Amino acid sequence: MATTQPLPTRAPRAVQASGLGRYLPFTRWLLRYDRANLPSDLVAGIVTAIMLIPQSMAYAQLAGLPPQTGLYASVVPLIIYALLGTSGQLSVGPVAITSLLVFSGVGALAEPGSAPYIQLVLLLALMVGAVKLLLGVFRLGVVLNFISHPVLAAFTTASALIIATGQLKYILGYKVGGERIYETLYQAAEGLGKTNLVTLAIGLTSITLLLFFRKGLRPLLTKAGLKPLAVTLIVSGAPLVTVLLGSLATWLLRLDQTAGVAVVGAIPAGLSPLSWPGLSLADAEALAPTAATIVLVSVVESIAVAKALASKRRQAIEPNQELIALGAANLAAGLFSGYPVTGGFARSVVNFQAGAITGLASLVTATAIAVILLFFTPLFYFLPQAVLAATVIVAVFGLVDFKEPRHIWQANRSDAITWGVTFAAVLLLGIETGIFVGVGISLVLYLWRTSRPHIAVVGRLGESEVYRNVLRYDVTTWPTVVAVRVDESLYFANTRYLEEALLKIVAERPELRHLILIGSAINFIDSSALHTLESLVAELRDGGVQLHLAEIKGPVMDELKRAHFVERLGPERFHLTTHSAMSALGCA
Amino acid sequence: MATTQPLPTRAPRAVQASGLGRYLPFTRWLLRYDRANLPSDLVAGIVTAIMLIPQSMAYAQLAGLPPQTGLYASVVPLIIYALLGTSGQLSVGPVAITSLLVFSGVGALAEPGSAPYIQLVLLLALMVGAVKLLLGVFRLGVVLNFISHPVLAAFTTASALIIATGQLKYILGYKVGGERIYETLYQAAEGLGKTNLVTLAIGLTSITLLLFFRKGLRPLLTKAGLKPLAVTLIVSGAPLVTVLLGSLATWLLRLDQTAGVAVVGAIPAGLSPLSWPGLSLADAEALAPTAATIVLVSVVESIAVAKALASKRRQAIEPNQELIALGAANLAAGLFSGYPVTGGFARSVVNFQAGAITGLASLVTATAIAVILLFFTPLFYFLPQAVLAATVIVAVFGLVDFKEPRHIWQANRSDAITWGVTFAAVLLLGIETGIFVGVGISLVLYLWRTSRPHIAVVGRLGESEVYRNVLRYDVTTWPTVVAVRVDESLYFANTRYLEEALLKIVAERPELRHLILIGSAINFIDSSALHTLESLVAELRDGGVQLHLAEIKGPVMDELKRAHFVERLGPERFHLTTHSAMSALGCA
Repeated sequence: MATTQPLPTRAPRAVQASGLGRYLPFTRWLLRYDRANLPSDLVAGIVTAIMLIPQSMAYAQLAGLPPQTGLYASVVPLIIYALLGTSGQLSVGPVAITSLLVFSGVGALAEPGSAPYIQLVLLLALMVGAVKLLLGVFRLGVVLNFISHPVLAAFTTASALIIATGQLKYILGYKVGGERIYETLYQAAEGLGKTNLVTLAIGLTSITLLLFFRKGLRPLLTKAGLKPLAVTLIVSGAPLVTVLLGSLATWLLRLDQTAGVAVVGAIPAGLSPLSWPGLSLADAEALAPTAATIVLVSVVESIAVAKALASKRRQAIEPNQELIALGAANLAAGLFSGYPVTGGFARSVVNFQAGAITGLASLVTATAIAVILLFFTPLFYFLPQAVLAATVIVAVFGLVDFKEPRHIWQANRSDAITWGVTFAAVLLLGIETGIFVGVGISLVLYLWRTSRPHIAVVGRLGESEVYRNVLRYDVTTWPTVVAVRVDESLYFANTRYLEEALLKIVAERPELRHLILIGSAINFIDSSALHTLESLVAELRDGGVQLHLAEIKGPVMDELKRAHFVERLGPERFHLTTHSAMSALGCA
Repeated sequence: MATTQPLPTRAPRAVQASGLGRYLPFTRWLLRYDRANLPSDLVAGIVTAIMLIPQSMAYAQLAGLPPQTGLYASVVPLIIYALLGTSGQLSVGPVAITSLLVFSGVGALAEPGSAPYIQLVLLLALMVGAVKLLLGVFRLGVVLNFISHPVLAAFTTASALIIATGQLKYILGYKVGGERIYETLYQAAEGLGKTNLVTLAIGLTSITLLLFFRKGLRPLLTKAGLKPLAVTLIVSGAPLVTVLLGSLATWLLRLDQTAGVAVVGAIPAGLSPLSWPGLSLADAEALAPTAATIVLVSVVESIAVAKALASKRRQAIEPNQELIALGAANLAAGLFSGYPVTGGFARSVVNFQAGAITGLASLVTATAIAVILLFFTPLFYFLPQAVLAATVIVAVFGLVDFKEPRHIWQANRSDAITWGVTFAAVLLLGIETGIFVGVGISLVLYLWRTSRPHIAVVGRLGESEVYRNVLRYDVTTWPTVVAVRVDESLYFANTRYLEEALLKIVAERPELRHLILIGSAINFIDSSALHTLESLVAELRDGGVQLHLAEIKGPVMDELKRAHFVERLGPERFHLTTHSAMSALGCA
């Protein structure tokens, strides 16, 4: 590992584009398109479209919207993202968790599927778009960092469970709809007698088929010697095949009339119509928490996926430009009868595996969906809702991850608590409240941690200039001088803790004359801490002990000088290193 | 300064008492009282009582309570604190800011001065007492650390301005009472024509007298050769003298009848009666924010004063026992017709200057107030409310501090912002909301700061083993190896910032082969940061750069091992010091 490796060509990193290419990334690839990439982008675009057709209708159903809304959200927003985005692989469009957020957020304000509901969803898409756009333009993507990994992991798993449970009504064929997952499960159990057995059979068959395509078919095809691309094409075609089989069966047997199987019904033909939601401040206020949650959750996930895939192609993405592109795509969703979109994980991986290199793949996908909208909507009249529900259930299966909390537990107990609290909060308090509880608890645990810093008495390691914790290393110490390292910046929440800890160290050492505070881990000292330091100096002086400071960093030293603390304590009490402090005090 | 000083006897530090003395501190001094302290404690107790008599009535008036409530709050609570507290100098009793908080908090629920108002105040005292007691018993005083120095400083100054403005109605002699300070000022200006000129004359004369006693008299008396103790006695007797003069004038001229001067009126004689508030959960809930604010503000201030004064007497105080003592004192206030009490700053200083050594001084003060209550309440019948208002105004003058924000500005810009926001919030949004806004903004600024850590490229200082910032020191660097120090723990809010910064450093150095991340300031790495580190390792590997870690602290190393990161990266990539990493990579 430590040997040197041959130096590969460096992938383009960070922001190197300038001028037009920076703000309109498509000028970098579309205007001088490399023909060699064409077959690859074309196939990827079609494969992704085949996956997106049933998915977009299924997610629209999950979001409480008519199926065509999902298709509408898969045309113009994709084109906009392809032009403005910096990832050639990210597949933008409807995704499961955003759809759930739309349903739970807007569903609290209007009857799902109703005209006012659709108006609110359009407004929501505009809001999400505007927020993302502004975050990108003002380079404020950093605020999204406050959603930590355990919060996102727990949120995703819990949301997937809620989504799967929410689809039960389509599989069982009777109305089930609790506020919370336990209510939904209870209602589902209570109504089991009302199950529409034909619907259930269609649902379970679809799930089995989809799972077989997903898990069983890939190894079989690979064993049979098919090329990876062909395998990907067949596997990602599975949902469409299921949809067509389900529609065919329902049509042939007229199951919608003979067995009461709920079907999608008439989808109006034609491209996404222009739309303009009624803009009301009261509605915007009511939708604000949902918009915030969608932005928080969808951007983090989307950028992470884009980054991972770009890295594998030796490409780079620019987070702020991604925000702008996703923002513009959502504005387009609001203006063309869609609903909030973002980059989907599974679909982007398929897009990548199918060979997507540039945004042309997304343009191909959008064209394919447009063709469906123009000419093939009647195909889906007999599509049973149970088949779409099966698509959703199998898709979110992949989001449930109970291994991750175990890894987190091994790495960091306090992060594991965050995972647990977020998971429980999402399930018990709802998804929006849940994620804010998660963000809150992760901040509180962070503050708690920094308010009780690790404090180590250090000694000299052999004859070196290195000073290490006396509890971990065999080091030399002296009775009249003690060196203490505080492993945290000094700020209001931990100064009193520090003061007590230092006074205790002094009280335990009756011969002590000098206390050296080592600042290598002190990144700043706020004015509360400065007050405490000053009173500490006085208290130590009363006890016959001098305070010294060593290894204070440049920026901290500047602050101490500005506050005249260096002057008051005396510059000779400041030492460049612990070793030089020890030498000056006659110890080393 | 750096020369050694003679070692004085060490003052008792931290918690050294055990058994009975620990939980009942009075057993340490009362049961074996040193007769030599008696004259000093006696004089201090009487001086403090002389100051407390007018003050307690004035603060009760400020709190919207009858004057005797202030006196009641100055008997049993003082005795309880004297027995359980660890400070011999702290003067517990009514204080200005707590009184304002009572008025603003309870005044929103009931008509000030009415019977239900008094019931709510008693309940509030019990709640404040219970919370402090519990914080002390469970050693949770640490939560009070979240109120930072700038927040407290801004809160105190803003509150003092609100208090002084609120007293205008007593000085002007007509009803003024806005929700916020600007409304009060506006109403006062609007009604100027209604001014009761005699009341105004009494008020202004009192203010002048008090200011003269406070500012002008002390130098004069000192110059005249009086002993400091006599000076303190005379100066702190000023409010009582003013009270007596005001009462005498009003009585002689019957100003209450001839000129409509509002007077205190009949105060019932007799010791504080037992009391028991109607306990209602709804009331307790409504009072909870006020109780929380009072606890937050009064404890921090009180403990700071006790600590400072104890330190000057070479005594020590125990913060958690202080919480218990203040809690019990407030319970006593609730049970004996008082209202929330705490340690007052100015009064404690007087108590100290007058010679208080042990809690006996407080017992003497309580006895003196009891004697007043039993025999001398008729004396105060003709006391003009304007005189009490003058006492309050002059007392809170000392709390207004506009120098402090300038000092804070010099030391720390972000703390200065906290000061400004808190100050504005208290004045514009109210004192309770204001302090929570202050605590909130200080936390947000802290998080903001840690989310954008200082990152320094370091080089070797001469031929030493010391590595310092290339921008601040003249150091040696190498083209193929770069050492980067991150001055912050790695956690969810800053990992993406760090990743971008490191990739930028790499992008700027085409010859780079090794990146050494110096962990001397990294106090922990959470699981989000670990994820980012892993993807960073992969990204750097793609670019032909190896990541190394140096100076990782013990606890952090343990975490990295538990998460199997050390295994995955390879143990040879971890180095004890930056210098040994450099040596291993053939640079130094």
